[in-house]
Amino acid sequence: MDIGIIGSGRMGGVLGTLWARQGHRVCFSYSRDLARLERLAVAVGGNARSGTPQEAAQFGEVVLLAVPWALALGVITQVAPLVAGKALLTCVIPWNEDRSGLAVGTDRSAAEEISRHLPSARIAEVLGALPDSLGWINGGRQRPAMFYCGYDPQAKAVAAQLIEDLNAEPIDAGCLHVARYLEPAAALLQHLAVGQGYGPEIGLQLVRPVD
Amino acid sequence: MDIGIIGSGRMGGVLGTLWARQGHRVCFSYSRDLARLERLAVAVGGNARSGTPQEAAQFGEVVLLAVPWALALGVITQVAPLVAGKALLTCVIPWNEDRSGLAVGTDRSAAEEISRHLPSARIAEVLGALPDSLGWINGGRQRPAMFYCGYDPQAKAVAAQLIEDLNAEPIDAGCLHVARYLEPAAALLQHLAVGQGYGPEIGLQLVRPVD
Repeated sequence: MDIGIIGSGRMGGVLGTLWARQGHRVCFSYSRDLARLERLAVAVGGNARSGTPQEAAQFGEVVLLAVPWALALGVITQVAPLVAGKALLTCVIPWNEDRSGLAVGTDRSAAEEISRHLPSARIAEVLGALPDSLGWINGGRQRPAMFYCGYDPQAKAVAAQLIEDLNAEPIDAGCLHVARYLEPAAALLQHLAVGQGYGPEIGLQLVRPVD
Repeated sequence: MDIGIIGSGRMGGVLGTLWARQGHRVCFSYSRDLARLERLAVAVGGNARSGTPQEAAQFGEVVLLAVPWALALGVITQVAPLVAGKALLTCVIPWNEDRSGLAVGTDRSAAEEISRHLPSARIAEVLGALPDSLGWINGGRQRPAMFYCGYDPQAKAVAAQLIEDLNAEPIDAGCLHVARYLEPAAALLQHLAVGQGYGPEIGLQLVRPVD
């Protein structure tokens, strides 16, 4: 396929490189550093070129949008006529300016609401494994990840221990405001299990290079 | 540990059962069906009892909150004095009434905003693997999950194929509104990588019982 890449930072750069190695032709565009863009295309080789966002949008039968959220709506108005009818793949996470949260998305969570109503308790959130996955993995060799977050170190230590006792892997996700990511992530897993037919026994694992 | 379980449905029931098997003592509470609650405690055996939410909150040095969101704030006001200073673990996902979305959380996403600004393009979102994870897993035996969602079947087919070409596993997450879960889930992964020190090369895998 011919793929136009709008936003050739870390994500767009890696995706375009891997696709070019698979035999797709790619056109990198939209870096703040035009020389870097050209070096990237040269390094990738014969299947890669570089150009303006308009050239990339025109070039691609598929267009990848991989720019920071603050720039996304601006650049798509520039290329709108050129992507009509084409598949446009977006991998934009709408981080706010200082990446402390999402600009499009919630600044609330159930865990924080609960904490506000229970200021005297030491709150931690524990989410990310479906109950049925704990059942089967308990007898098996794999264990699902279970994420926990909170402000109180003592509550977090308890959470980590009790996750271990489910034979799940405790992943420290940070402070309680991370519940804003964790609750939608758990909702995603439930949606996959029920709405998308992957089944109630699926689980997530966090994999690392050394695994 | 002594663990009070408030909300003994599927999630609270399984967690309490597994913890009791590990030697913790649990008190199940807050089921619409009191006979079911007692059967659950009997089935689990000597480490389990059942009671009211107040009894469970009093019993536990740790309290698990596992009720539907619509009931959460009501029940915690009933037990507030009893959980003061205790670790309270919440695994409440704030689903709305018909479970079509989150009641506390966003009803917006970058992908939907982009789609609104580009009605003529066939939008799919592709998220869930960090660029550095694609680098290392490409040379390895494990591949990270990459989730895609959208309304347009053609764009989704392209997304799935191009995820395969990254040597990642394409997971069909459904319609474009699932971007409301997917973007925070991707934010969680980035936060783990950078903010929590798990490193830029981590990835998620979807595991199933047959794996």
